[in-house]
Amino acid sequence: MKQIGVGILGFGTVGAGVVEGLLRNRQTMAERLGVEVALRRIADIDISTDRGVAVDASLLTTDAMALIHDADVQIVVELIGGTGIAKTLVLAALNAGKPVVTANKKLLAEYGDEIFDAAEKNGVDIYFGASVGGGIPIIRVLREGLAGNEIQSIHGILNGTCNYILTRMEQEGLPFEEVLDAAQRAGYAEADPSLDIDGFDTAHKASILASLAYGFHVPMEKVLVEGIRNLSGMDVRFAAEFGYRIKLLAMIKREQSEIEVCVHPTLVPLPHMLASVNHAFNAVMVQGDLSGNTLYYGRGAGREPTASTVIGDIGDVARNLVAGQPRYRRAISATNDGTFAMRPPPEAASKYYLRLMVLDKAGALGIMATILGRHGVSILAATQKACEGEDETLGYVPIVMLTHMAKEADVDAALRDIFTAGVLNEPPVKLRMI
Amino acid sequence: MKQIGVGILGFGTVGAGVVEGLLRNRQTMAERLGVEVALRRIADIDISTDRGVAVDASLLTTDAMALIHDADVQIVVELIGGTGIAKTLVLAALNAGKPVVTANKKLLAEYGDEIFDAAEKNGVDIYFGASVGGGIPIIRVLREGLAGNEIQSIHGILNGTCNYILTRMEQEGLPFEEVLDAAQRAGYAEADPSLDIDGFDTAHKASILASLAYGFHVPMEKVLVEGIRNLSGMDVRFAAEFGYRIKLLAMIKREQSEIEVCVHPTLVPLPHMLASVNHAFNAVMVQGDLSGNTLYYGRGAGREPTASTVIGDIGDVARNLVAGQPRYRRAISATNDGTFAMRPPPEAASKYYLRLMVLDKAGALGIMATILGRHGVSILAATQKACEGEDETLGYVPIVMLTHMAKEADVDAALRDIFTAGVLNEPPVKLRMI
Repeated sequence: MKQIGVGILGFGTVGAGVVEGLLRNRQTMAERLGVEVALRRIADIDISTDRGVAVDASLLTTDAMALIHDADVQIVVELIGGTGIAKTLVLAALNAGKPVVTANKKLLAEYGDEIFDAAEKNGVDIYFGASVGGGIPIIRVLREGLAGNEIQSIHGILNGTCNYILTRMEQEGLPFEEVLDAAQRAGYAEADPSLDIDGFDTAHKASILASLAYGFHVPMEKVLVEGIRNLSGMDVRFAAEFGYRIKLLAMIKREQSEIEVCVHPTLVPLPHMLASVNHAFNAVMVQGDLSGNTLYYGRGAGREPTASTVIGDIGDVARNLVAGQPRYRRAISATNDGTFAMRPPPEAASKYYLRLMVLDKAGALGIMATILGRHGVSILAATQKACEGEDETLGYVPIVMLTHMAKEADVDAALRDIFTAGVLNEPPVKLRMI
Repeated sequence: MKQIGVGILGFGTVGAGVVEGLLRNRQTMAERLGVEVALRRIADIDISTDRGVAVDASLLTTDAMALIHDADVQIVVELIGGTGIAKTLVLAALNAGKPVVTANKKLLAEYGDEIFDAAEKNGVDIYFGASVGGGIPIIRVLREGLAGNEIQSIHGILNGTCNYILTRMEQEGLPFEEVLDAAQRAGYAEADPSLDIDGFDTAHKASILASLAYGFHVPMEKVLVEGIRNLSGMDVRFAAEFGYRIKLLAMIKREQSEIEVCVHPTLVPLPHMLASVNHAFNAVMVQGDLSGNTLYYGRGAGREPTASTVIGDIGDVARNLVAGQPRYRRAISATNDGTFAMRPPPEAASKYYLRLMVLDKAGALGIMATILGRHGVSILAATQKACEGEDETLGYVPIVMLTHMAKEADVDAALRDIFTAGVLNEPPVKLRMI
C-alpha cells in the first residue's frame, strides 16, 4: 500500500490530538482510504513538554522550515493558529508545492484571498475542515455533499463558549457576568474572553462559510458583528416566555444576487432544531434549493473532535496525492464572477424583539406601537410586564414587542423617535429573531 | 472545461428531480467541481408521461442497455429501485466499466456483497449516498468526514413515515391506526405501508450504515427488526410522562469486536437531539472515538432532497474520472478481515421500558419488582397508573417500570415468569430506551 508522509506544525492541544488519532487509528484509516498515512515530522518551538502522547523523539524538531522542505513530508498540517508565523509557514508550504491542511479560522477569514491564491498558483490542495465547527464535517458537506445546491441560507451556532454561557443563563436564570466568571474558572472561557463573547470568533467562521457557499472572499469588515456581552437576563427570560431561546447565531442569507452575513444574539423558536443545541455544542443549519433544511451538530472545539476533522482532511489530501491530481477545486470555490454582492446591513430585513423600559403611565404601549406603525413596523405580539422593582427602574415598566418582518433601518428610525420622546429610562433593546 | 456524460436509468420522481437539478444548477456545479456534468441520456419504460421537467426528447430512450453502452455516457445513475431489473442494470454497468451512482437501499442491503464485488473487480466507483437519509449527506460523512474515527455507535431516525406517525400520535394523542389512515390519505404513507411501519425500510438503511462503519456486509437476517404497528398510544403517553419520546430507531453499537444492529421503537429522553426530530424529518447521530457525538438532520426522502445527494455523488464520480482514478476504496470499506462479529440479539444490553397490565390488588408492584430483581434486572423508576377504565381492562392497572441496563435475555426470562404468574390480562409491553 502506498504511503503518504505527514508533517505537523504545532504540537499543542490539537496537534497532540491529531498525532494520537493518526497513530491509534492508522490501520483502520489505511483500510478505508487505500493509502497509508505516515507521521513523519512534528515541529514546535517547545519540543520538551510532555504532550501526553508517545512519539519517537526523532520525529520532533524546532525547525519548521526544515519540516516543510523535508522530502518525506508530502502534506503539511498547520495547527499553530493566528496570523503570524502560521501565515508565513502556510504560504511557504504552498509555495514549496506541498498541500496544506489547517484548522486556522482567523488566517482564512483575514487572509483567505492570499492563501487560496497561493494554493491555486502552485496547483496544490488547501483543506480547512476544522476551521469551522470542530468535529462537525460542515466544510466538507458544503464543499461536496451539497455541491449540487444553490445555498439559500446558513444559520450556525459556532462558538461553544457563548452557547455554554447562554444555556446556563437560560436554564439557571443567572446574569451574564456570573456565568462568564464560572465559565472562566471551569476553563470553558479564556481569561480574555472578548474574541468569543464579542462575536469575532463566530464572525471568522461565518466569513469562511459564506466564502465557501458563494465563491468569493467575504472580508471580516463586511460582517455585522454583535456579541452577547450586553445581553440582559431579563431578555433571556422574556424570550423564554414568548417561546424562544436566545442563541448567538451566524446568519448567512442570499436574496437574489445579494448576500448578507451577520453575527448577533437571536431569538430562536423552541421547536427549531437550533434551540435544542445546548452547552458547548455547535450546530449549523444549511438550506439548499434541493436539499431543503439540513442540520449538522457536534462538538465545535476540543482536542479530539478537532483532530477528527483534521485527520479526515489529511485522508482526502493523501488520496488526492495518490490519485495524481494534487489540487481539487472543491477546496474552495474561488470562482466569483461578480454574480454576488454584499448587502449593506441597514437593508437587511428580520423579525425583531424589542424591549423598552417605559415610564409607567396609561397608554405607553399604545404610543410605542403607534410610533413603530408610523415607520411601517408591525407588531406580532406585545406584552407589558410588571417590573421587579430594582431601584433604578422604579416607575418604569418593560414593554416587550415582537415584530413582523421589518427593515433594520425602519426599526432603528422608530426606536430613535421613541427614545427621543423621553419616556424611556435606558436605550431600547433590539434583538433579531428567526 | 472537461465534460463528463451522465445517463439516468429511471425517470420517476427522483429521476425527474435529478434531471431538473442537473440542468438548473449546471453552471454553479461546474464552477465548484472544475468539471462539467452533462446530461446525455435518460432511460425509462415510459418516456411519454410528462415529468414536469423540460428535456430534449432526443435524450429519452426505452433501451436501458443502449444507455449503459453509449460511449457518451461515462456515469450510470440508477434510480429505478428494487432488486429486479435495477440489479441487472447496475451489474451490467459495472461490468461495462462504468461507475454507478444509485439511491437503491434495498439492492445494497440485500445484494451489497455482489454489487461491491463487481465494482471492485471492474475497478470502478459505486456511490450510494441517497440510499440512506435522502438529503442528508450521512454516507459521505461516514465514508470520508469521520474516516479517522473508530465508530462506536450510530442511532438513526431513518423512516419519515414512521416518524410522522409517531409525532402525531404523541402531539395529538391519537391511536396508531387513526394516524396511519390520515397519513395514507395525505400521501405520507403507502397503500401497503408494511415496508415502512414494520421497520424493514429502516433495517435496509441500518444494514448499509453498519456495513460502511465496520467494513463488512451486514446481512438483513442479522438485523433484529421490530416496527411500530403494535405501538399503543398508552405507551406514548406514559413515556411522555417520564420525559421521553418514542422514536423508531436504527441502533448500531460496537462492543469490543462485536457489532449489534437492530431496529425498534425506542424511548429517547427529551433533551436528546433525536427527540427534537419530528414529522417526516430524519436524523442520524454518530459517535466516533475522536469526534464524539455528531448529528445529521434533514429530509429523508422526496424528489429534491434525494436529488441533492444523488447529484453530490455524480459530482464526486465525475471528479474521480477527470482525476484518472476511477475507483475510490472509500466508496465502501470492503475490508473486514474477521475483526468484527455480529452480536446475537439476546446478548444485547439496554435500558427497558416495561408496561404490565396487572390485576389490581395490593402488592402487585412489589411482586413484579421482586421477579425482575430475581433475574438481575434493577428498576430505575416505576409507577402504577390509574386505568382509564375501558371494558377489557377493568380490574387491571398498568404498572410501568423503567430499568437500568439489563441483558435482553434476563428481561425476557423475568417477563415470562411474570406472565406465567397469571396476574396479567395481556402480554407485557417491552420497549428499549437510550
